[in-house]
Amino acid sequence: MPAWRALVTHAAAMDGVRIQDLFEHDPARARHFVCEDVGFYLDYSKQRVSRETLELLLGLARQQQLEVWRERLFSGAHINGTENRAALHMALRAPCVADFRDAGRRVGDEVHAVLDRMRHFAERVRDGDWRGVTGKRITDIVNIGIGGSDLGPRLVCHALGPMIDGPRPHFVANVDGAELHAVLSRLRPETTLFIVVSKTFNTQETLANALHARAWLASSLDIESVSKHFVAVSTNREAVEAFGIDADHMFGFWDWVGGRYSLWSAVGLSAMLALGPTRFSELLRGAHSMDVHFRRAPLDHNLPVLMGLLSVWNGNFLGTTSHVLAPYAQRLSLFSSWAQQLEMESNGKRVTRDGVAVDYATTPVLWGSVGTNAQHAYFQMLHQGPAVHPVDFILPVFADHPFRDMHRKLMANCLAQASALMRGKSADEVRAELRAKGLEGAALEAAVPHRVFPGNRPSNTLLMPRVDPFHLGALLALYEHRTFVQSVLWGINAFDQWGVEFGKQLANRILDGQADGPLDPSTEELMRKLRLNAS
Amino acid sequence: MPAWRALVTHAAAMDGVRIQDLFEHDPARARHFVCEDVGFYLDYSKQRVSRETLELLLGLARQQQLEVWRERLFSGAHINGTENRAALHMALRAPCVADFRDAGRRVGDEVHAVLDRMRHFAERVRDGDWRGVTGKRITDIVNIGIGGSDLGPRLVCHALGPMIDGPRPHFVANVDGAELHAVLSRLRPETTLFIVVSKTFNTQETLANALHARAWLASSLDIESVSKHFVAVSTNREAVEAFGIDADHMFGFWDWVGGRYSLWSAVGLSAMLALGPTRFSELLRGAHSMDVHFRRAPLDHNLPVLMGLLSVWNGNFLGTTSHVLAPYAQRLSLFSSWAQQLEMESNGKRVTRDGVAVDYATTPVLWGSVGTNAQHAYFQMLHQGPAVHPVDFILPVFADHPFRDMHRKLMANCLAQASALMRGKSADEVRAELRAKGLEGAALEAAVPHRVFPGNRPSNTLLMPRVDPFHLGALLALYEHRTFVQSVLWGINAFDQWGVEFGKQLANRILDGQADGPLDPSTEELMRKLRLNAS
Repeated sequence: MPAWRALVTHAAAMDGVRIQDLFEHDPARARHFVCEDVGFYLDYSKQRVSRETLELLLGLARQQQLEVWRERLFSGAHINGTENRAALHMALRAPCVADFRDAGRRVGDEVHAVLDRMRHFAERVRDGDWRGVTGKRITDIVNIGIGGSDLGPRLVCHALGPMIDGPRPHFVANVDGAELHAVLSRLRPETTLFIVVSKTFNTQETLANALHARAWLASSLDIESVSKHFVAVSTNREAVEAFGIDADHMFGFWDWVGGRYSLWSAVGLSAMLALGPTRFSELLRGAHSMDVHFRRAPLDHNLPVLMGLLSVWNGNFLGTTSHVLAPYAQRLSLFSSWAQQLEMESNGKRVTRDGVAVDYATTPVLWGSVGTNAQHAYFQMLHQGPAVHPVDFILPVFADHPFRDMHRKLMANCLAQASALMRGKSADEVRAELRAKGLEGAALEAAVPHRVFPGNRPSNTLLMPRVDPFHLGALLALYEHRTFVQSVLWGINAFDQWGVEFGKQLANRILDGQADGPLDPSTEELMRKLRLNAS
Repeated sequence: MPAWRALVTHAAAMDGVRIQDLFEHDPARARHFVCEDVGFYLDYSKQRVSRETLELLLGLARQQQLEVWRERLFSGAHINGTENRAALHMALRAPCVADFRDAGRRVGDEVHAVLDRMRHFAERVRDGDWRGVTGKRITDIVNIGIGGSDLGPRLVCHALGPMIDGPRPHFVANVDGAELHAVLSRLRPETTLFIVVSKTFNTQETLANALHARAWLASSLDIESVSKHFVAVSTNREAVEAFGIDADHMFGFWDWVGGRYSLWSAVGLSAMLALGPTRFSELLRGAHSMDVHFRRAPLDHNLPVLMGLLSVWNGNFLGTTSHVLAPYAQRLSLFSSWAQQLEMESNGKRVTRDGVAVDYATTPVLWGSVGTNAQHAYFQMLHQGPAVHPVDFILPVFADHPFRDMHRKLMANCLAQASALMRGKSADEVRAELRAKGLEGAALEAAVPHRVFPGNRPSNTLLMPRVDPFHLGALLALYEHRTFVQSVLWGINAFDQWGVEFGKQLANRILDGQADGPLDPSTEELMRKLRLNAS
């Protein structure tokens, strides 16, 4: 792979280069290394890249046929090879007339038929036309689902919380019953609607929660009430009906919708109920706008492409092993959890599409939390730890709360951290500061090294207008495509997840007894302590 | 450093060794590599360590004088050298008679005097003796603080949520006013008590939130009401009084209490108000029990020592770069955030105590979230990514909710994941499985590599009896001491945090105008876009 080798050589040449020097050699850098579209403004001038780096990265993209793969993605090719499926989540947020096809068949009509059923249902609940079995309005909805059936709608409802004007949304995911127990203790059966979200309708966690929720309902109302208080997002009609849910209240999706890309489908029903169909449409419209940008913009002016290339540059050529997400927006506090699944479930792979083991890093550990809180937690390490961790600073330009001075402070802190990571503070600068405070001699010299910041630590700054439905949708789609871009550069399939199967098998073996013989001695010993011996 | 070199040599020898082989060579391994005390049961037999590894690690501990440093910690030596301070958080949870001393002076009486004042105050609020200015009972408390003044009490109130029998606790940390705005919109001024937590009483975020909270209160009641609705946890009496808080309602602490170790001090006041003094005492008692264990147990049977040694083994000798915390307990969902500050602010350092730059890794990236949710998010990467990430599985044996079948499923999943990470699944095993499903030939061979799990991925399993105040306190103290153990092995000071200062300086420069000349061109450009130009 010549493009890869060229980057390795180039990275060695860049070894001693400091980002600040790059600014001196290229005064236009701050305006050159930016990309602006769909309301977003990405400044990547504080990355450790020169114009040559960018050319070489774009060469890697061409060598890996990024444009071909992008077109394959959008054209519904079955790029999820191990499951022989398309990955057409873009169809979920496109206008009905858009020409998305799976196996040659247009999917727009089906997609919009489900969307229309969702809208109709959401309006009925929100208007008080759909009521509980005792005739009371629905005041609370509980989304029961896990992974992709949880993180997306949970994030959207939290991020757009101040705009909720429908029933209050609650989320239950964990098979730890403490979560369901806490949620139920705040609710009344006759005004609660449960949404059970599981494609197969046999996800262990989701079914366990749904069964206890049904028992809670039935113990207070009666078992006939289930059909008025439960709906399903699933494709398993038989199981849904057996549970007691009317098939008319089942909202389906398709095998070309991966769990971690499913927010835009009926999996988003809880968000639509809470926020209303109009805001949900805005969310879709924002994501669609980002799709159009990703598909049409040239590689060197393409937000997901640039962010994917820069991540690969940091991880595979500069040797960083983690990537920090730092949204400076309290309402984006669930963004990192959502992005963790998106990126690490998609790209946490060690074989290429063809099954060959990779000899390079794939996804870094993606982690982070909101600023400024993070500054008071782990930013110490980002500034002064021995290892470099690139950061994505994400900052809404406008706030939707009345405390304007606070928003100015928030923005200033965000910019300050990115600048501090890059410039650092030299021993001489520290010495001058300490001397000004009256320190001198041995005491001064002892204090200096602890206050030095090595700097030269890269970051992106991504401005977005505000946390509204449109730009939230676009932000999520941006990261979806960034994940895809990386998968193409690494030559892996971003759309399967075989790594989640094995643990499920073992869990069932532990629960059901030891048909296949004993597990390892440590697990056996722990099972004894926990009285998990089926025998 | 001979012990370090011996471990490097040993790690090379261990290179091809699989954990499962170690079980075969040492049948007693599952009972040997455990440590049990204070109700906890640590199984570390699924680490990639032999008995020799453990001996060598203990040799490193001796070489680094871990026992000496442990005694220096407990004896109040000023081991925070750059600030010339002790780190005596253990004194906060010790009985009054315990002999903790700072600069020769016993601190127990002062500690317990503050605790008694806190208890008295908490009882008054909880009993309805202390009331708001209009005579109404306090139903809600708002903790305003950030970093260590937020994460600890927030975690405790969340983890022990079902036991809250006092006023409802709320937390506001971020300088993003969206957080305060959301909290205030749920509250009524006349029944709300604010607790402003800032040692200096000039933390930017905390003061901004406190000022807006005061304005909100005063606009509805009047400015005289501040003294009945605000208390402070601080040591700056003058600033507290200037704010309008009676000095009698200020709860202090000491310079030997670091922010990230301050939950046990008056910083825990919100938790005491919500949970009551008795439960708060139990929390302290659990932490104290872990202190006693850490101080007295031999190194090879010492929970924080073993966990610290194993973390250093993985990071410095096996080359892992992150460490995953996976509590299988929904109520511990904030544990990782708390531990991130604890570990990465403490050990995110690049110079030794003497100011010499390290040439080895210090803290790994600490991250994670609760199981089983995490299984449906990033466990794909833990199982099948190219890089190894050690995991701490933390599992309460008993649950406090009525859904017993769910707790069994939770426990089974936890054990299954640890086992799966270790054993993996070979190509031959995959082949047999696929063949049993009817797959064969080229289709079978193409499917195999995607379903292989390399295994040999290390984890700890830490059982705790339940998430009650005592064991929660002990768990937090366990991780505190684990962090300290690592700092001693690395020769760094875990108790300062110079890395958080520089960003604050730059943020103020951005807000106040450019007294010191322009910042970098990127930051200048972003300031223009955000209209943050002071001029």
